[in-house]
Amino acid sequence: MRVMTDPERATKILLTEAEMPRQWYNLLADLPTPPPPVLHPGTLQPVGPDDLSPLFPMALILQEVATDRYVDIPEEVLDVYRLWRPSPLFRAHRLEKALGTPAKIFYKYEGVSPAGSHKPNTAVPQAYYNAQAGITRLTTETGAGQWGTSLAFACAQYGLDCEIWQVRASYDQKPYRKIMIETFGGTVHPSPSELTNAGRAILAANPDSPGSLGIAISEAVEVAAQDPNTNYALGSVLNHVLLHQTIIGEEALRQFAQIGMTPDVIVGCTGGGSNFGGLTFPFLREKLAGRMDPVIRAVEPASCPSLTKGVYAYDFGDTAGMTPLMKMHTLGHDFIPDPIHAGGLRYHGMSPLISHVYELGLIEAVAKSQQDCFAAGVQFARTEGIVPAPEPTHALAACVDEALRCKETGEEKVILTALCGHGHLDLAAYGAYLAGDLVDHELSRDEIAEFVAALPAVPA
Amino acid sequence: MRVMTDPERATKILLTEAEMPRQWYNLLADLPTPPPPVLHPGTLQPVGPDDLSPLFPMALILQEVATDRYVDIPEEVLDVYRLWRPSPLFRAHRLEKALGTPAKIFYKYEGVSPAGSHKPNTAVPQAYYNAQAGITRLTTETGAGQWGTSLAFACAQYGLDCEIWQVRASYDQKPYRKIMIETFGGTVHPSPSELTNAGRAILAANPDSPGSLGIAISEAVEVAAQDPNTNYALGSVLNHVLLHQTIIGEEALRQFAQIGMTPDVIVGCTGGGSNFGGLTFPFLREKLAGRMDPVIRAVEPASCPSLTKGVYAYDFGDTAGMTPLMKMHTLGHDFIPDPIHAGGLRYHGMSPLISHVYELGLIEAVAKSQQDCFAAGVQFARTEGIVPAPEPTHALAACVDEALRCKETGEEKVILTALCGHGHLDLAAYGAYLAGDLVDHELSRDEIAEFVAALPAVPA
Repeated sequence: MRVMTDPERATKILLTEAEMPRQWYNLLADLPTPPPPVLHPGTLQPVGPDDLSPLFPMALILQEVATDRYVDIPEEVLDVYRLWRPSPLFRAHRLEKALGTPAKIFYKYEGVSPAGSHKPNTAVPQAYYNAQAGITRLTTETGAGQWGTSLAFACAQYGLDCEIWQVRASYDQKPYRKIMIETFGGTVHPSPSELTNAGRAILAANPDSPGSLGIAISEAVEVAAQDPNTNYALGSVLNHVLLHQTIIGEEALRQFAQIGMTPDVIVGCTGGGSNFGGLTFPFLREKLAGRMDPVIRAVEPASCPSLTKGVYAYDFGDTAGMTPLMKMHTLGHDFIPDPIHAGGLRYHGMSPLISHVYELGLIEAVAKSQQDCFAAGVQFARTEGIVPAPEPTHALAACVDEALRCKETGEEKVILTALCGHGHLDLAAYGAYLAGDLVDHELSRDEIAEFVAALPAVPA
Repeated sequence: MRVMTDPERATKILLTEAEMPRQWYNLLADLPTPPPPVLHPGTLQPVGPDDLSPLFPMALILQEVATDRYVDIPEEVLDVYRLWRPSPLFRAHRLEKALGTPAKIFYKYEGVSPAGSHKPNTAVPQAYYNAQAGITRLTTETGAGQWGTSLAFACAQYGLDCEIWQVRASYDQKPYRKIMIETFGGTVHPSPSELTNAGRAILAANPDSPGSLGIAISEAVEVAAQDPNTNYALGSVLNHVLLHQTIIGEEALRQFAQIGMTPDVIVGCTGGGSNFGGLTFPFLREKLAGRMDPVIRAVEPASCPSLTKGVYAYDFGDTAGMTPLMKMHTLGHDFIPDPIHAGGLRYHGMSPLISHVYELGLIEAVAKSQQDCFAAGVQFARTEGIVPAPEPTHALAACVDEALRCKETGEEKVILTALCGHGHLDLAAYGAYLAGDLVDHELSRDEIAEFVAALPAVPA
């Protein structure tokens, strides 16, 4: 008989591998209204499977439009998941004490994965389904580098080649990411590159372009579309990506059940929305069913505020306009983020599904400054011992806000934070923060207006 | 009732926090003969507690000479250990498959700790006992940076200042280590520095000195000895350090008991010996008691082969000759390692306790080249998803050798490997290896002769 840990005293709430969820959860099955359709940019009609088949295997296309509530996780994917899953749920005893809060703070930690973030949760099934379909190479973009690392790892598991366009600013700032991708067997190009029409056009206009996720997506999509043995993989935004990430929330539900608690507030950072959707959608199911009532709060950078300051409109997923049109919160596909030391979350658009859920009023959103985020990250490192990636410091900053409100009101709220990765390869950003050199830039609506004005015209 | 995982199929063998060992194991209680005494460098008589009290708190001095079989771990230390302990034992299913071996390969992974290695296992109790004794600052050396990071983290837990001398070559090659130490609140100086007599003397002789652990120890010891509120902390070599690390092996024993297996071969890398001792000493207890009979094999770099090519003699622990004399396998305290991309393990001496155990014939030792080590590290990353620190790639290279021997003989040996840390902050070394630029240097006995000739004369 195994000795179990006192739930109130536990630091780590763990699941055994046998307790790992065997299905992903599809929020589309439970929403009161479906999200607006994805449109073909030429016809402005809803896209069908054939429109997507040059880029994705049919298994993923079907998942993209599936309305089944649950999707079985293949055994071959579960086998790889077991390298790090189930991931731990931590009780932040030492952070609570440092804050002097009566709140109970929990964090679901995805930094235990091979890439150090939640990204392998979808990289692995994407590589698997592509390998099953006979594809031999995947292309993709990467910003901070987490996604590229994850896909390179996943491709190594199923014998696929992996070619990655990394946003130039990140490529220059984070040389370790390139090496880690190469260690897993992947190939990395800085983006914009001379290897694609999209890249050459950008470089012709601006040889010093720092790049953007939108540009890198254009390059990866262009290469994949030209070769029948090559497909493209996206690390966030799309429905099937968020579907794969729901294993995070499904585990967290089981972990809270183990200690007999439910969260009152859930905070997660949002870039494209996959970590946030992955943790929160299973809780949203419970909320929609009336079984619990957590406040669910998205946290984005004040320098890239698609939910809090962007418009809700049809836009391209990439800069060159090669992708279908998706209705989403967007800063405009021409948006180029400042090349500031702040990791990912620097995408012009927000997942259409997250955008829709936000429009339905099922979630809240706030924006945080870089200074607040890194301050929370340093405090977290010194108390909990994990140096968070810049992305989840946004969630931590919002978590600290909530915990300090509880200190004022005396409320013993249970706060669940998405700690989606560690910051080992982002330490240059911490160095800049500690040296007082961190460049902060709160994007104004005026600055966004220029990009938003260029959105494609789509009849209502 | 919790659902448990099939032992044969499991990837991770986990212990609950309640199952975490509550005592460290002291091998001195079970050895057939005690190791030779530590000597005062002036009198050549065995040192007493008073000789050590300018540097260490009495609790650690008593642990250094204790002969009790078990030492209770303080509750305040267990509270911090729970941030990452018990650490997982992994079955390397995917590496086994890639090698085509009938051997069952397990690795005990210490990279889940705040610093990313086993070092916090002793940093935390060292900081705790010093805080209990009223000390307000700790000084130390660091080579690859794991130990400095660990002590900075530990000091943050108990409110101590932490000042670190980092070997110059590593300071220049690994800027992220400095930032991580600073994120935890520590202060870092490159060594040799202008801040100490020892550092100034080295710089006067060689302004471009790449430094060494021996030099950095001299600097840290000098500063600690001058201030009654400051103590010194050592990250390896000493008995109390190895004592604290035995929680690794105690956990591994419980994890093997959980799946009903015992290891036939245990391999671990050795620099000062703390990770190796920490994993293997509890198994050595079982071996000495006749309850199991594993082969225990130390693996060291061919470029710093203290066990396989050094002499067994009294030597200083530091370069300036400020420490007591310890009988150990040594390359001579003047030894300066090549500033090659290979992380830690670059210390001139070996733990006296490991050296004694080696002389008793209770363990074996082999040396591995950098090429073999990084090849094993890359294969491990691509199969198991963890990029290992350069140090444990030595153990992995020896593990691969053993597994391939099993492939030839058909033996289904159970191999336990000490995976003492991840390589996220050592990726530059992987970059050099992948680019074919890794400098390899197998140290010859002739090269060592010069340093060994300068050993202090100690009558037998």
